[in-house]
Amino acid sequence: MAEDTTTTKPPALTIDVPGLTSVLDGKYVDMRTEVRRLLPSYASVLEDAETMTRDEFRERVREVVLEIAETGAPGVGFPKEYGGGEDIGASIAAFDTLAYGDLSVLVKFGVQFGLFGGAILQLGTKRHHDAYLPDLITGKLFGCFAMTETAHGSNVQALGTLATYDAAAGEFVITTSTPEAGKDYIGNAAKHARMAAVFAQLEVEGEGHGVHAFVVPIRDELGNPLPGIRIEDDGHKMGLNGVDNGRIWFDGVRVPREALLNKFADVTEDGKYVSEIESSGRRFFTMLGTLVQGRVSVGSAAVSTAKVALTIAVKYGLHRRQFETGNAKEGEDAEQLLLDYGLHQRRLFPRLARTYALHFAQEVLASRLHDVFSGITPDEESRRLLESRAAGTKALSTWLATDVIQECREACGGAGYLSVNRFAALKADTDVFMTFEGDNHVLLQLVGKGLLTDYASDFSDLDQLGMVRFVASVAVETVLEKTRVHKILQQIRDALPDRDDAWYTDSGLLDPSYHLAMFRFREEHRIGGVAKRLKRGVDSGMNPGEVFSRVQDHVISTAKAHVERLVLEAFVEKLATLDDGDNKLALNMLCDLYALTSIEDDAAWFMEHGRLTTQRSKQITREIGDLCRRVRPVAGDLVDAFAVPTELLRAPALIQPVVEVRAKRASPVVEVRAKRASKP
Amino acid sequence: MAEDTTTTKPPALTIDVPGLTSVLDGKYVDMRTEVRRLLPSYASVLEDAETMTRDEFRERVREVVLEIAETGAPGVGFPKEYGGGEDIGASIAAFDTLAYGDLSVLVKFGVQFGLFGGAILQLGTKRHHDAYLPDLITGKLFGCFAMTETAHGSNVQALGTLATYDAAAGEFVITTSTPEAGKDYIGNAAKHARMAAVFAQLEVEGEGHGVHAFVVPIRDELGNPLPGIRIEDDGHKMGLNGVDNGRIWFDGVRVPREALLNKFADVTEDGKYVSEIESSGRRFFTMLGTLVQGRVSVGSAAVSTAKVALTIAVKYGLHRRQFETGNAKEGEDAEQLLLDYGLHQRRLFPRLARTYALHFAQEVLASRLHDVFSGITPDEESRRLLESRAAGTKALSTWLATDVIQECREACGGAGYLSVNRFAALKADTDVFMTFEGDNHVLLQLVGKGLLTDYASDFSDLDQLGMVRFVASVAVETVLEKTRVHKILQQIRDALPDRDDAWYTDSGLLDPSYHLAMFRFREEHRIGGVAKRLKRGVDSGMNPGEVFSRVQDHVISTAKAHVERLVLEAFVEKLATLDDGDNKLALNMLCDLYALTSIEDDAAWFMEHGRLTTQRSKQITREIGDLCRRVRPVAGDLVDAFAVPTELLRAPALIQPVVEVRAKRASPVVEVRAKRASKP
Repeated sequence: MAEDTTTTKPPALTIDVPGLTSVLDGKYVDMRTEVRRLLPSYASVLEDAETMTRDEFRERVREVVLEIAETGAPGVGFPKEYGGGEDIGASIAAFDTLAYGDLSVLVKFGVQFGLFGGAILQLGTKRHHDAYLPDLITGKLFGCFAMTETAHGSNVQALGTLATYDAAAGEFVITTSTPEAGKDYIGNAAKHARMAAVFAQLEVEGEGHGVHAFVVPIRDELGNPLPGIRIEDDGHKMGLNGVDNGRIWFDGVRVPREALLNKFADVTEDGKYVSEIESSGRRFFTMLGTLVQGRVSVGSAAVSTAKVALTIAVKYGLHRRQFETGNAKEGEDAEQLLLDYGLHQRRLFPRLARTYALHFAQEVLASRLHDVFSGITPDEESRRLLESRAAGTKALSTWLATDVIQECREACGGAGYLSVNRFAALKADTDVFMTFEGDNHVLLQLVGKGLLTDYASDFSDLDQLGMVRFVASVAVETVLEKTRVHKILQQIRDALPDRDDAWYTDSGLLDPSYHLAMFRFREEHRIGGVAKRLKRGVDSGMNPGEVFSRVQDHVISTAKAHVERLVLEAFVEKLATLDDGDNKLALNMLCDLYALTSIEDDAAWFMEHGRLTTQRSKQITREIGDLCRRVRPVAGDLVDAFAVPTELLRAPALIQPVVEVRAKRASPVVEVRAKRASKP
Repeated sequence: MAEDTTTTKPPALTIDVPGLTSVLDGKYVDMRTEVRRLLPSYASVLEDAETMTRDEFRERVREVVLEIAETGAPGVGFPKEYGGGEDIGASIAAFDTLAYGDLSVLVKFGVQFGLFGGAILQLGTKRHHDAYLPDLITGKLFGCFAMTETAHGSNVQALGTLATYDAAAGEFVITTSTPEAGKDYIGNAAKHARMAAVFAQLEVEGEGHGVHAFVVPIRDELGNPLPGIRIEDDGHKMGLNGVDNGRIWFDGVRVPREALLNKFADVTEDGKYVSEIESSGRRFFTMLGTLVQGRVSVGSAAVSTAKVALTIAVKYGLHRRQFETGNAKEGEDAEQLLLDYGLHQRRLFPRLARTYALHFAQEVLASRLHDVFSGITPDEESRRLLESRAAGTKALSTWLATDVIQECREACGGAGYLSVNRFAALKADTDVFMTFEGDNHVLLQLVGKGLLTDYASDFSDLDQLGMVRFVASVAVETVLEKTRVHKILQQIRDALPDRDDAWYTDSGLLDPSYHLAMFRFREEHRIGGVAKRLKRGVDSGMNPGEVFSRVQDHVISTAKAHVERLVLEAFVEKLATLDDGDNKLALNMLCDLYALTSIEDDAAWFMEHGRLTTQRSKQITREIGDLCRRVRPVAGDLVDAFAVPTELLRAPALIQPVVEVRAKRASPVVEVRAKRASKP
């Protein structure tokens, strides 16, 4: 909507595509290359999803998961003593590269090795590892992760499944307390799981100790539910129909004392509850925290799906022509390439830039995860920062996937609606990414809580109301000063140019320190604002629930601002590690484009808070248009660098070089016109 | 993100739900009631879509369309002499109410009676009506509408199918000029159509006359393709798999001279081309214009799908509880209703308001359509205004549907992902609404062109480049002053309060004349801005194609601003016709909410253009929060007024009163806690 001032052509960049792929592959280039090599063998699964019945497809997906298990890929994140590779970072890389292929395969893989396997590994101890990991890693033992219930998804602390300890028998009795406390949406439950990691309220000697996890056999060798177990199929779903989601109810199911996954708490042989973590809330969050890998994996996979969609849409835009160009020379096609339209660029390129940004953000996250869980930085503080970062990045990455896939589908017109062109499944399969492993809004609330309470373990068992009461109980300045973010931001600020008001309006729009300053200002100002509103609400006598309800969108936007800052920093820091050259220049452009569109999205807010003049706001919009035009000549290379195997793109009509076919003939309309013109 | 100032409870409104339904039903209450009565008999089709194979489902959908045809509903828009009801408005009402049910049924119905029937009726003359309408209306003759080609969707003028007149034989020879000029995505083509309305480049005596439509038999009585016809199935699609879309190629297919749908042009017995419309471009747009009913219908149906999604999500929010309230009294549920969360309200209620707004906008549009096509206002000017309005409203309504369905799905969490809860099909089926009957962005370009060229018939055959050249050729003031919008806006301005700068910042935020003034300012300013940029671009020596490319997003945003203004006016005007009372107060709230969220969405732009202070921008955000809290107590009534038959909601788990089930038991967690507390 702003004026165009530049008409000069941008300097042409020459992208080294394999080099750029290496930058994206990072430390795990071997693992990623290996999975990309493997994937084309399973390209037919994409078609099976459309042609097979649900039952057939579920079996097919199970077979593929087993075949992939044979390659040893799933074991890479498990300890060496159980046949694993003990490399968590590599296991995330394997997972997100698998996301280029069929997503039922990916999710079933994640349910088996990430959720079920992760619960056994992280919540269990040696007795569980010895008993289950070897068969689990090879896929001989299929299991499920039975946490969510019909009535409780996000608020896991309020689960209605009970595990009462029968001291006399030395057994836990697992019972579903009400029909809607049945486990629900559980992957692998409807068909394939023989065992479940069941989350239930533990009660010992009549005393409740909160949610704990238990290993519970649910099916016999023939696949029939065991006594006391009732299973129902969740039926047809929007997508991921190769995964057998189901419901499970427990009616007095008895499991031995050793079934408790007892890493953080145990029941002793003489029937006493023991735990090194005193607060039941903190214990609960510690248990959940060990499952952070799932969030990192889903976010990372989501970014991969965005890459697939962009690859197809950009290639389509490079071949498809529409309407006249007005400047076709003799012999040229009279119609303009879609990707030469300003609007088309505006729709695709900021999303391309954001996909790159979230790729690097996920890379940092995976590396933090690796460090925490490989014992490099196992401290409580690193763990809590990791959890918050994983929660926030998962939300942004999965929303990115939904947004990018939708826009790319629309950018491919009617062809994008045909299943053969992948968008149908991409859209349907990824939709639930926003919900599973934690609803995005709930996850951002978690991030917001962390920001406001300094991730301190003292507050880790605070629910949202506890958080409101805590923030209200201290001075706003205290909240702000206490927060880690404040301290970090202060340190960073010291390293940045002096940021008086004039600096904000005078510095170059493409100066990364300007972008960082804007992102940090947004984050800090919002944290302070939330603290003030929470405090004022409680002071005015409103009950904490209502205060929270009213401030909730502010909490969410604060959390978003925080994660956006982490994303930008990850991108900027990555750039600093690269050698100079056209690849770096191209990534610089994308980083600028990401940063400026994020500022543009919040332009009203920045103006409201005195950090953006109306004049400069218009300049930003213009600059984004310029950046899009500069990205245009290298757009094809930038998606090629994602290295999505061609076999997985399907989309025959969308990505084949239509232009060559067309070049061989004159357009009939042109013929018709030519004839008319030449008529005497 | 703004402060909360009000803590007072809003006055409780008492909604008369049937009364509100009557307001929504408007003039066509009988037709809508009748279709709602009919729909529950076909509720099972929603399930068939999941359980049947594609072939079975296609047959099932065909049967249902035939059964509905027996009720006489499809005929309502056709002339009485062919058994129709000759009431176009009523036929739109029937169609959009059908959209509460399965959408494959709706689209197949639309293909048969709207597209195929519409082409015969609107482009043909008595000979075609006599020959085809009676069998078409009863569904005895299935047909298809063969316009789009693989290589050409939006740019229909460049179609590659040729119709060459063979004067000696008195026949047209229909030929697909290249493989990718094959007709594509054609509903009914893969299976059921025996006849096609084929759009092709007409050539008579070696001279091209542009695109015309022909009736071409494509299958024999047994369903086999006729000689020279090759048909391919488009295969599995994202949604609407009950509709058999396919591709058709023609190889020298001969049809008699009378096969030309000759309302606007003909080939005489002695082989001469004749038309009352001289310009081939104008002739083309006149032909396309007769198909405007399709756009009105799709937009109207899209609004219905948003209503279904909102009904489910709001009902779910009224039953589902999550996390603790902090103010539960003894015996009350400790968890808070989802709909009591501020963020949940912020996600659903502005979308509810916008759905109401677009409902009334579609009502005005249907009434204009009725008037133009029933001969009440058949003049060229009314027709062009109608076409522009239909194009723009279709874009906004279909984007609304996509946005609302997505947000509602996410607001229902994992349950929203199960097909039984309708979102899966709603999402997949409606996705293509943004593309068919005209891609939304292309339609908005059409609106923009109309705004800039005053809808004058002289310019109706201008393509986008012609438009650029035209605008560049006159002074900006001329463009502005010449435009109809300018004149209309001037008239309206005279009726509004004096709008100096202070007025914008001082008038009440809930004053409709403030909303209208803001909407009109936005529209007018953008038109002027586009004109300036087009002119400046051409003056600077850029070629028109590049100028257009750069200004394209500005053209689109201008068109959007125009349509938003029409939507707001429709809502405000509707309110003026209502009797005072709580129903009117509730609709007033929704209208305010719609207007303010539209202004908020563009807050940065309004600030950039001096029509919003930063202070007032924050006030608007606060006011939206207040409005959401005021909508909350009547939200259930507001969706009940949509009167979606309960049988069609499916969603057993989402809409049943879970709260009653839960009230009967104490939460296990509460029990556990109580036990712990009472321990000695």
